[in-house]
Amino acid sequence: MPVTIDPKTRSWIPVPSDNDFSIQNLPYAVMETTNGASAVCTAIGDQVINLAALHDAGQFNKTAIAAENIFKADALNKFMTAGRKTWTDVRQRLCDLLREGGDPALKDDVNLRNKAIQPIETVKLKLPVKIGDFTDFYSSKHHAMNVGIMFRGKENALMPNWLHLPVGYHGRAGTVFPSGFDIKRPCGQTKADDAQVPSYGPSRLLDFELEMGFFVGKANDHGTRVSTDQTSDHIFGMVLINDWSARDLQKWEYVPLGPFLGKSFATTISPWVVTLDALEPFKTNAQPRDIPVLPYLEEKSAAAYDIELEAHIQSEKLTEPMRLTHTNFKHMYWTIAQQLAHHTVNGTAMRVGDLCGSGTISGPTKDSLGSMLELCWKGTKPMKLPDGTERRFFEDGDTVTLTGWCQGDGYRVGFGKCAAKILPATPT
Amino acid sequence: MPVTIDPKTRSWIPVPSDNDFSIQNLPYAVMETTNGASAVCTAIGDQVINLAALHDAGQFNKTAIAAENIFKADALNKFMTAGRKTWTDVRQRLCDLLREGGDPALKDDVNLRNKAIQPIETVKLKLPVKIGDFTDFYSSKHHAMNVGIMFRGKENALMPNWLHLPVGYHGRAGTVFPSGFDIKRPCGQTKADDAQVPSYGPSRLLDFELEMGFFVGKANDHGTRVSTDQTSDHIFGMVLINDWSARDLQKWEYVPLGPFLGKSFATTISPWVVTLDALEPFKTNAQPRDIPVLPYLEEKSAAAYDIELEAHIQSEKLTEPMRLTHTNFKHMYWTIAQQLAHHTVNGTAMRVGDLCGSGTISGPTKDSLGSMLELCWKGTKPMKLPDGTERRFFEDGDTVTLTGWCQGDGYRVGFGKCAAKILPATPT
Repeated sequence: MPVTIDPKTRSWIPVPSDNDFSIQNLPYAVMETTNGASAVCTAIGDQVINLAALHDAGQFNKTAIAAENIFKADALNKFMTAGRKTWTDVRQRLCDLLREGGDPALKDDVNLRNKAIQPIETVKLKLPVKIGDFTDFYSSKHHAMNVGIMFRGKENALMPNWLHLPVGYHGRAGTVFPSGFDIKRPCGQTKADDAQVPSYGPSRLLDFELEMGFFVGKANDHGTRVSTDQTSDHIFGMVLINDWSARDLQKWEYVPLGPFLGKSFATTISPWVVTLDALEPFKTNAQPRDIPVLPYLEEKSAAAYDIELEAHIQSEKLTEPMRLTHTNFKHMYWTIAQQLAHHTVNGTAMRVGDLCGSGTISGPTKDSLGSMLELCWKGTKPMKLPDGTERRFFEDGDTVTLTGWCQGDGYRVGFGKCAAKILPATPT
Repeated sequence: MPVTIDPKTRSWIPVPSDNDFSIQNLPYAVMETTNGASAVCTAIGDQVINLAALHDAGQFNKTAIAAENIFKADALNKFMTAGRKTWTDVRQRLCDLLREGGDPALKDDVNLRNKAIQPIETVKLKLPVKIGDFTDFYSSKHHAMNVGIMFRGKENALMPNWLHLPVGYHGRAGTVFPSGFDIKRPCGQTKADDAQVPSYGPSRLLDFELEMGFFVGKANDHGTRVSTDQTSDHIFGMVLINDWSARDLQKWEYVPLGPFLGKSFATTISPWVVTLDALEPFKTNAQPRDIPVLPYLEEKSAAAYDIELEAHIQSEKLTEPMRLTHTNFKHMYWTIAQQLAHHTVNGTAMRVGDLCGSGTISGPTKDSLGSMLELCWKGTKPMKLPDGTERRFFEDGDTVTLTGWCQGDGYRVGFGKCAAKILPATPT
C-alpha cells in the first residue's frame, strides 16, 4: 500500500509553500556527484540529498538494503527492482531524517550534511532511468476528439475502438533525453498537399506534446498480466514528458503503421520521478465512462490524479516565458491502471524501467490544450507573443518548459522542470 | 571494408556442403558455459567455438582487444562497440585458427580444444544482443501489395508514401526472445465484423511473419545521420526474425497509431548473428525502382542480398515438418542501407544493439509468401497438412521454424534455426 506523509509534517530544511519539493513529495533522480560518479538523490526545498552518501554513512542500516548501496548507480533501476517493501522503507526513512522532530542523525551531523546535501542549482541531473521500452498511449478524449475533428471531421472524430481500449503504440526508448538536453530540429520527407512528389528538408511544423508517463517498477513474465488493482506494486512513479512531434514528417509517413520519424528524434522527460506514494493523496475519480468497458479494464476505486500542468515558451527575444497552456492530468479518459492492464492483457512481459506515456493531455477548454496543433488549430489561429512575433509551431531558439504539481493545503508535490531548447537543423 | 574468406578455404573441422556454418560464415552467438557463465562463440560445422576460452589462452594477443576479454559477456554488445577494425581482426584471427594450413595453435593443442570446442547440440544459446530499440520496416513490395489488395482493393493497395520511403514503425525490444523460447497464445480484445461490441479471449488468428533484421554495431549522435554508403561500418550483422502477429487483435486496435498488442507479446530471432562480412559475396542488385528516390536514399552499388529463406510447420501430429514457404531476401524493395539512412535522416540517435527488422518477406509467387495471412489469403484458402488437419492460422502445439542461407559454390553461409512452439493461452 502507498505511504503518504501527513500534510502537517514539515522539514527542518525550509520549503516555501509553492516549492515543488515538500517533504510530502520526496521524488527520486540521478545526480552527477563531485567525483564524476552518479548517485540516486531526492529533493527537498532547494536542496538535493545524495542517498548514496546517506547509505555510506549507515543511514539505511535498519532496512533490507543495508548490505548493498543500491543508490551508487547511474539509474534508479536497481532501487526500483528492490520492490515495494524497499520503496516504502526508504521513503519512511527519508521522511524521518528530514522532518522536524525526526531522527537528528542528518540534521545534527555537520560532516554528513556537507557530504549529502547540496543546493539544487549546483547539481547536474541525468536521465533517471535506464528505459527498456517506451510506450505512448493516446488517452485524452479531448485531444483525440480535437485531432479527429481536424483531420476527419466531427462525425468520425473518434475511431470505433477508442472508447473500448486505451489506444497505444511503441515509441523510441533510446532517444528519451533528460530536461536540459537541446533538441536539433529534425529533417526528413514532407509532401505539400498540392505537390506531386515529396521533398527533403528541415521540419517546418515542430510541435510539443504535453504528457505524463509512468515507470514500471516490477516486471511480469511472458504470458502473465497485471490487473488494475495491482498498479501500486507495479508502478514506481511518474514524470513529465514532452513528446516532440514534427507534424509535417508525421503526416506524410504515418499511414498505415503509425508515427515514426515524426517522433523518434527526441522525447524530453523531467529528471524527477514522483512516486505513486507521493501522488496518492491527490487521487480523484476518473472521467465518467461513455460506455461500459470489458471486465479487465474495470477499476474498483478512484484512479485518476489531480495534477496541474503547464507549458511555457521562452523565445530568444521574450523577456520572460509566456504560458502556452494550463491543463490537468485528471482530464484523461483512460487511467494509468487501465493502461498497464491493457498493455499486459496479451501476456506482454514488461521490464523494470519501461516507460508508458499518457499521450497528449488536453482539457475541455481552449486554453487547456496540450499541443500547438490544437492551440493554434492546425496553424489557422496563430498565437501572438509579447515580443511581437507569432507562432503556429516552434522556431529555432525557442525553449519549451513543462511543469506539473499537485496542490496540497499549504504545500506542493511537484515534478520540477521538463525543458528543452530547439537548435537549428544540421545542414547536410 | 568487409572481409570475405576465399570460397576455396576449408576448415580442419569437417563441414558438410549443406551445413550453415562453413568457414566462410563465422557467425556470432552467446552461449551458456559449463560453469553457468556466458561467452561469445562462433560455429563451424557441428561444433561451437568459445571465444572467451580462446582469449583466455592468449589467442587474440596480437589484436587491439588483447587487454580485455570482451567475449566473457552475456551479449555481443561490447564486441560490437569495439568497432569495424576489431570485427575485422577477430574474423581474420578465427579464420587463421580454423582453416586448414593456418595457425595450428588451436588444432594442435588438445587441452585448448577441450576447453574451447563443444558439439553444437550440447550448447545452450541465449539472446545474442542486449537490444536497445526494435524497429520494424515494411519493405517487401509483394507483401505490401498483397495486404493492400486484401484490405483496400487493388487500386489502393500501396499507400501514396510507400514508393518514396521505407515505411517503418517501432516494435517492442523487451519481448524479443531467442529461438527455442515457447510462445503463449495471446489474449485480448477482438471484434467480429457483425458484432456491436468487442469481446475478450485468446487470439484465433495467430500468424507468423518471415523477416530478417540487422543489428546496429556503431552508434550515431542525436542530430547526425548515417548515409547509405556508411552501412558496412554501422551494421554488424543479421538474424532471422519471426514477428508473431495476432491478426484479430491487430485488426481491431491498429487504427490510427499502428500495431501494438497484436505484435508486442513476442518476437523470435535466430541465435546466430551472421556478419555483413560473411554476406558480402552474396550481394546482388536491388529490385529496380518504380520511381526515383530522394538523394539521401540513393545507393552507389548493389545492396540487396541473395539469401534463401524457408519456414516450416511441425504440428503435434505431423511425422516430419512441412514447408510453408520458400522465398528470398533479394525480393525486398527497400535495402538495409536505405532503411538505416532513412531511420537516421531525422537525426535519430541509434545505439549499438538496436535491431531493425525488414518486415514480412514475400516473393512474387504463391509459394513464396511470408505469412499465413497471405499463404491462405485471409483464411479463404486453407492449407492441408499431411496429418489430415488444415490450417488458416496456427494451432496450439504448432512449432514454426525459419531457416535461411546463402548458397555458395560447395558451401553455405546460414543462420541456423529460428524456432518457437505455440503454447495454449493462460486462462484468466
